[in-house]
Amino acid sequence: MSPIKGRVLLAYSGGLDTSCILAWLLEQRYEVIAYMANVGQEEDFEAAKEKALNIGATKVYIEDLRREFVEELIFPAIQANAIYENVYLLGTSLSRPIIAKSQIEIAIRENCKFVSHGCTGKGNDQVRFELAYYALKPDIEVISPWRIPEFYERFPGRQALLAYAAEKNIPVVQTVKKPWSTDENLFHISYEAGILEDPYCTPPKDMWKLTVDPEDAPNVPERISISFEKGIPQKVVNHGDGTTITDPLELFIYLNTVARRNGIGRIDIVENRFIGIKSRGCYETPGGTILRAAHIDLEGLVLDRQVRAMRDQFITPQFSQILYNGQYFSPEREFLLASLLESQKTVNGEVKLKLYKGNVVVEGRRSDTVKLYDMEESSMDVQGDFSPVDSEGFIKILGIRLKKWGKSSL
Amino acid sequence: MSPIKGRVLLAYSGGLDTSCILAWLLEQRYEVIAYMANVGQEEDFEAAKEKALNIGATKVYIEDLRREFVEELIFPAIQANAIYENVYLLGTSLSRPIIAKSQIEIAIRENCKFVSHGCTGKGNDQVRFELAYYALKPDIEVISPWRIPEFYERFPGRQALLAYAAEKNIPVVQTVKKPWSTDENLFHISYEAGILEDPYCTPPKDMWKLTVDPEDAPNVPERISISFEKGIPQKVVNHGDGTTITDPLELFIYLNTVARRNGIGRIDIVENRFIGIKSRGCYETPGGTILRAAHIDLEGLVLDRQVRAMRDQFITPQFSQILYNGQYFSPEREFLLASLLESQKTVNGEVKLKLYKGNVVVEGRRSDTVKLYDMEESSMDVQGDFSPVDSEGFIKILGIRLKKWGKSSL
Amino acid sequence: MSPIKGRVLLAYSGGLDTSCILAWLLEQRYEVIAYMANVGQEEDFEAAKEKALNIGATKVYIEDLRREFVEELIFPAIQANAIYENVYLLGTSLSRPIIAKSQIEIAIRENCKFVSHGCTGKGNDQVRFELAYYALKPDIEVISPWRIPEFYERFPGRQALLAYAAEKNIPVVQTVKKPWSTDENLFHISYEAGILEDPYCTPPKDMWKLTVDPEDAPNVPERISISFEKGIPQKVVNHGDGTTITDPLELFIYLNTVARRNGIGRIDIVENRFIGIKSRGCYETPGGTILRAAHIDLEGLVLDRQVRAMRDQFITPQFSQILYNGQYFSPEREFLLASLLESQKTVNGEVKLKLYKGNVVVEGRRSDTVKLYDMEESSMDVQGDFSPVDSEGFIKILGIRLKKWGKSSL
Amino acid sequence: MSPIKGRVLLAYSGGLDTSCILAWLLEQRYEVIAYMANVGQEEDFEAAKEKALNIGATKVYIEDLRREFVEELIFPAIQANAIYENVYLLGTSLSRPIIAKSQIEIAIRENCKFVSHGCTGKGNDQVRFELAYYALKPDIEVISPWRIPEFYERFPGRQALLAYAAEKNIPVVQTVKKPWSTDENLFHISYEAGILEDPYCTPPKDMWKLTVDPEDAPNVPERISISFEKGIPQKVVNHGDGTTITDPLELFIYLNTVARRNGIGRIDIVENRFIGIKSRGCYETPGGTILRAAHIDLEGLVLDRQVRAMRDQFITPQFSQILYNGQYFSPEREFLLASLLESQKTVNGEVKLKLYKGNVVVEGRRSDTVKLYDMEESSMDVQGDFSPVDSEGFIKILGIRLKKWGKSSL
Repeated sequence: MSPIKGRVLLAYSGGLDTSCILAWLLEQRYEVIAYMANVGQEEDFEAAKEKALNIGATKVYIEDLRREFVEELIFPAIQANAIYENVYLLGTSLSRPIIAKSQIEIAIRENCKFVSHGCTGKGNDQVRFELAYYALKPDIEVISPWRIPEFYERFPGRQALLAYAAEKNIPVVQTVKKPWSTDENLFHISYEAGILEDPYCTPPKDMWKLTVDPEDAPNVPERISISFEKGIPQKVVNHGDGTTITDPLELFIYLNTVARRNGIGRIDIVENRFIGIKSRGCYETPGGTILRAAHIDLEGLVLDRQVRAMRDQFITPQFSQILYNGQYFSPEREFLLASLLESQKTVNGEVKLKLYKGNVVVEGRRSDTVKLYDMEESSMDVQGDFSPVDSEGFIKILGIRLKKWGKSSL
Repeated sequence: MSPIKGRVLLAYSGGLDTSCILAWLLEQRYEVIAYMANVGQEEDFEAAKEKALNIGATKVYIEDLRREFVEELIFPAIQANAIYENVYLLGTSLSRPIIAKSQIEIAIRENCKFVSHGCTGKGNDQVRFELAYYALKPDIEVISPWRIPEFYERFPGRQALLAYAAEKNIPVVQTVKKPWSTDENLFHISYEAGILEDPYCTPPKDMWKLTVDPEDAPNVPERISISFEKGIPQKVVNHGDGTTITDPLELFIYLNTVARRNGIGRIDIVENRFIGIKSRGCYETPGGTILRAAHIDLEGLVLDRQVRAMRDQFITPQFSQILYNGQYFSPEREFLLASLLESQKTVNGEVKLKLYKGNVVVEGRRSDTVKLYDMEESSMDVQGDFSPVDSEGFIKILGIRLKKWGKSSL
Repeated sequence: MSPIKGRVLLAYSGGLDTSCILAWLLEQRYEVIAYMANVGQEEDFEAAKEKALNIGATKVYIEDLRREFVEELIFPAIQANAIYENVYLLGTSLSRPIIAKSQIEIAIRENCKFVSHGCTGKGNDQVRFELAYYALKPDIEVISPWRIPEFYERFPGRQALLAYAAEKNIPVVQTVKKPWSTDENLFHISYEAGILEDPYCTPPKDMWKLTVDPEDAPNVPERISISFEKGIPQKVVNHGDGTTITDPLELFIYLNTVARRNGIGRIDIVENRFIGIKSRGCYETPGGTILRAAHIDLEGLVLDRQVRAMRDQFITPQFSQILYNGQYFSPEREFLLASLLESQKTVNGEVKLKLYKGNVVVEGRRSDTVKLYDMEESSMDVQGDFSPVDSEGFIKILGIRLKKWGKSSL
Repeated sequence: MSPIKGRVLLAYSGGLDTSCILAWLLEQRYEVIAYMANVGQEEDFEAAKEKALNIGATKVYIEDLRREFVEELIFPAIQANAIYENVYLLGTSLSRPIIAKSQIEIAIRENCKFVSHGCTGKGNDQVRFELAYYALKPDIEVISPWRIPEFYERFPGRQALLAYAAEKNIPVVQTVKKPWSTDENLFHISYEAGILEDPYCTPPKDMWKLTVDPEDAPNVPERISISFEKGIPQKVVNHGDGTTITDPLELFIYLNTVARRNGIGRIDIVENRFIGIKSRGCYETPGGTILRAAHIDLEGLVLDRQVRAMRDQFITPQFSQILYNGQYFSPEREFLLASLLESQKTVNGEVKLKLYKGNVVVEGRRSDTVKLYDMEESSMDVQGDFSPVDSEGFIKILGIRLKKWGKSSL
């Protein structure tokens, strides 16, 4: 028998794919430690652990990354108003850095020469995981079975995997396979592939898992307030029952709860994957949808106009693209973050919201500490210190260039 | 009596302010022609005309600009996904260029040395009108009474205007003044000032005029399809009753109708006026909200990734800012428009939508002519021509820079 | 006699204009303190002080701001590679914030209600000074005589000022007035107006003051090295005579010296003033031209590609525009500065330069601490760790999108 | 003997590498047609043709692309002020699209299934050629020997190639190999690799081929004028001898001539290759350096401020990056080109230049047709129509936001 090639830390989900990969890696004479990240997905971690050990994993790590996920990734994304191609709130992208970082930490601790994952060769996640691995540990070696011909040619479809699982005594849950794939975490769930690959096909009502259908949501709105400091949510208050939450993880989970029951956060998009293929995805991002709307609204009250324009034009799209394309651990993210944080210094205040059948309606906002909004100055009825004659000069000066252009165009 | 100072073309609304301005201009020894633009606002134009003539206008023009407004301003804004500060769809800004252009055309025809308007000195509209005037007719002279001390000091509030109206026999409609101001056109209505100046104050339910409250909207969704060519809407079909519309103006009015009855298009924002004052505005943009959502969605299917990213980062915010700040007639707008139109060459296809209690839900999209989306290539289940090994190289090359950075940061 | 209206701190130069302004302010019943900033211009400060006191100034401040100018303004501009309209190195703009800040500090100390300056109403400097005043002390009142009709109508030209000076016993230096205006500081000198207003007119050889004509510069090149830390120059070494300088102020003065004798730093430009008027300016920026070339070169070696691209596209032009337009004291400058400083963390190393008859020639660069450049990896002759097969995949993946586009365009 | 695998169109230079590739392709049972592009490099095309035929090429194409190169690539790059990383004028990048396009046209005409080239696997040119191939003919197959293990492992260095050449009777010119590589075309020559891989090493004086050393250039300046229409050079006049050129190709060659003899256009840079490796390059771009300086200068006179700022911030860097990264044939280039051309509508006029020992000195500029510059308006001595009071209002309005910020920061 050939000697052991080395120790691999495999990102393991408990599902068919990564179970077969685990068995296959063992077959290829690797030692395998399984790694599971709890980023808030619905999962029976203990059952998966037992399964991995049964297949032959030396050890299994289950890491609860939920708090770090909220504080390190989700909240900065809210500060940035991060969004991809005008619609997608980056839920899958956001979980990747936190998972990869933890995986590399354990790989170092366990002295693994290799890390491995079950991502396909056509998607974004392979890029996100591996660029993070390389940035965090430049000498790590990556085993990506779905890009290795001897693996993907051996397992051309689900049937081949099932046969291999049977051969290796890997238990397979006897559920009917849904005609789409999902990826879930605390921030969102994604649906893609299968019947969704026809972009004209309307997703079936029973696909959506995290949120109630707006048509089935309560007929009576729910009202909450969210308070921010430096663009970070600090407190949520439910005006109906007085629930008040301040712990970041609990706060985010609570926002998920109220958003879910009010049908908030569904989207359907054809997006451009990093590798240049167009792809259709459906997503539910309940709490994140509320937080983004509230944060954007508050910024209207407390952020300087020029800072907002610059942040919107430069930081938001670049930061979002970096997340989507898997370049979170990079000098450019640190570069962008510096100005982003500077922009958030004044984002302090409270936003009132009405949640109703899919709608997040802003009903008012205030800030005790930031006074860029001035009711008297703003007033159309009160003149205040404002001298209307100044506007005359302002417009005249702005007109110089345009008159010149107008003359030269005549 | 002093001689006539010259002929003024006054943008006239029939309301108290511009009626008093008309009378005051006559008092100042100007000859005044009144100009009214029909951009789709609810207005009794004939009554206003008679009123202007009674006050002393030499002539009254009523120009129906609705079709031009839709084709020249609203549709390009849809092509650009125009939006200001992430929220405001620019409804007031969009009507200004079309009104100013027509006003200048008539001023030229009528040989007016002056144009005048009733905008306040604190707002955006004075800038938008006057920069348009100057660009289109650099030698025009503008009379802006609310910036002339002898006018605004004489009329410090509504009471003074009412007294002057009484003195001049100007009829005043005996309605209770609403505690906010509005500006309406085919695209939207705005509400600001009065009680809205407290940004924490929730607008009263009876303020909203164009749309039904989502809570009162039908319990059954309505489904429509919108077809675009080069980013311009060509056809709307109602899947319920089969209504089909293709004429641009009728199409837009019809979208307003279905949006209004389904409670679509309300927003509430604290925005930054061009002159640097923060201001709170509420807006209803029923049809425009549907069109924008549909257009953005279709672009996912038919627009190249890089073109989209560049358009989103550069054209959309700059084009929107130019509209907001009143620099529509400018070399920079022509500059931006060139690439915008280039980007829209492939924006051909159809989007299916569900309208329900404030929500615009995309349910699918397709294009017969643009084939950038490829189901087989996109598929996670079918390998197609795609070689997973290529992704290996792609990631490795992207990793070179990040590994170097990772090493230098260790 | 009417009572004193208040105390004014006047930015005073000792020249005809500000001397007349001083006399006129006294005539208008203000108390006047004169303020002179030493930002490195050639000036007899003591003579000017005496003159101001003779005219009637209560007190005269002479502030040596040279070191602060170098450290607070010039060096950050070098870090940003600041440049306006591709050509102008912003010499005048850079001195304004430092002068205004000091003037406001003294105004506060001396309890002045007013500040005043001698800038014209058509230029950029009025904007730069006054926006700085307003940001630093929002309640300050500004007296800008060249914008006050009773002043500028009384003094329509130089003759009127000379007559007024004679009347007030203000001594006027009997030099022939040069047919252009200048503004000088440690960083640069500007020439504008007069014969230069014809943009086709070549500036006369004797106009240029700070640098020797390249045609008259030494026939033998001079060689120096400049070392940077975090983008800030730390040391200059002259390879000819071994001169070594490390003190920031002395270092910058020394760079001026070597640049001047080698004819480095002249430019001639038609630029766009902030108020929308085109204007022709000639400038000499000797030391700054060398520093900018060296800094840009070093960044090639030590700055990450993406950080460079983002900094170049966003920070450099915005930071430059802010300086030019007088918005240095602003939230947007703080916003941009955060990422700028982040980008400079790795800008450590040394650049070798040859100076010769107007040319700044880079002859090599190195960094002991930043190792992003890797000779083996870079080598076309040595394969190193690099796997050429990876490039295959990289190109194939990049080709996916372009093939699709190529097909759809056929 | 195995059957012929198909017909290849090989980009052939006549040098050792592509001669060996030609022989190797024949050995691999391909039919090979050789393709040579004349883009202005110094080359004995006829000798190379004979050599290719002797080695076994079925046919040899020599295409004179010089005029197309100037008109289709160089002039648009001048319109865009294209530059990479602040320094590099993109000389190699610019020739690639024109070469690839012609190669694909012949491949189609000759019914070739394959194209091939001699680029290394570490450089930019492989990307530039192949992405162009794929965009222009999506089904083309590319043979890139330096990325095929059986090729590059067989020929690990120059000695192995020489041995193979000897074996195949390929004549090798007996010159001493220079310790760097070059790539030449009408626009520039590049030097890289070899001793240049040490970025601190100063290039030897005898490396530079296209330009005389500034130290050896004439002691008397030469003066020329260049006229542009829509940003395209139309005429060059030499003020010394009256030479006047208007044909685009001749005009560019003439600019090269005068630039070369005056030592203009040398640079030395550490740049970031597209694949993420830093690399040192030296370049000479004689005529291009003059044209770029003249074009930028003229734009000061005739381009609107906002258009210039937007073009500079967006089009210039993106267009340059696209060229560098080999994405010339792409929807994004067409997108950017639309606004670029729009911006150049007013770029009409003449620039006077002095050429002297490496310096390109602008001595004046004028435009008969574009009148955005206005001497009276610009004048600091003449008031003209300008009302200084307008500036008062302009500054006051700009101050509103900054005062608010100043107050909130106190």
